[in-house]
Amino acid sequence: MSKGYQLDIENEHVAKFFESKNFAFLATVNKDGSPQVTPVWIDLVKNNDEDSIILVNTAKGRLKHKNVSRDPRVSISMIDSETNPYSMITIKGKVIEQTTEGANLHIDDLAKRYLGTDTYPAHSADSERIILKIEPQQIFYIPPRYSQYLKKT
Amino acid sequence: MSKGYQLDIENEHVAKFFESKNFAFLATVNKDGSPQVTPVWIDLVKNNDEDSIILVNTAKGRLKHKNVSRDPRVSISMIDSETNPYSMITIKGKVIEQTTEGANLHIDDLAKRYLGTDTYPAHSADSERIILKIEPQQIFYIPPRYSQYLKKT
Repeated sequence: MSKGYQLDIENEHVAKFFESKNFAFLATVNKDGSPQVTPVWIDLVKNNDEDSIILVNTAKGRLKHKNVSRDPRVSISMIDSETNPYSMITIKGKVIEQTTEGANLHIDDLAKRYLGTDTYPAHSADSERIILKIEPQQIFYIPPRYSQYLKKT
Repeated sequence: MSKGYQLDIENEHVAKFFESKNFAFLATVNKDGSPQVTPVWIDLVKNNDEDSIILVNTAKGRLKHKNVSRDPRVSISMIDSETNPYSMITIKGKVIEQTTEGANLHIDDLAKRYLGTDTYPAHSADSERIILKIEPQQIFYIPPRYSQYLKKT
């Protein structure tokens, strides 16, 4: 890894990643112990007005949902795709709760941020949305790099 | 997962992801069985003029290098960040070989593509580059989606 820093979830450099349209890449572990990674929309909220937690909204029964139900440990990677893709955070975390309550409204909120539309375009009667609440345990941050090259490309 | 297709590594839709400046998100498994994910530059080449394999260039002793040396199974996720970030591929694969031969030249090649510079700016006497050769075993592709919303945001 390049030069980076351990930061707290409340740090402004971390918050910036959650305010943009950056995707998060969520890694989980499959039943056979092999890794799995998938892009997700992501959210950072106060849990019960206290600790900051990360929310991922998925559909019940999808691979990542099955995986975290078996082993709650996750790894999350985000790059600052809008400003400097060489600035990044990696988060080690754990799914501490799953809930379907408010999950449909929450995916609409995410669609608003990521797509600029009031309603998530892929609501389906065949799938039930579920929120994964992730406790961030360790956050590694790499500040912007290679800015001089990005202008040229 | 959304509607997608199993494709061959030789498919033109897959090739497109490797020709751009898209980062790949490489997931591996840590010693304690937890997942790890990190952004990497990525390459698709013919191995011995035969099978297409994926190359990742890292430094010896980094976490992902240690991880694949213990358990060669990897998962790779890429989004088409330049054209439609909702088009994506997920690749299940296995590190079949590691080599330091040509690894310094290879990272220069990648720097040329990703940064537009002839020489990798972070060469260091303290670290030895190593190429991970990954055999792609399963490729899942999701075509472009949500194009109508992307214009608005």
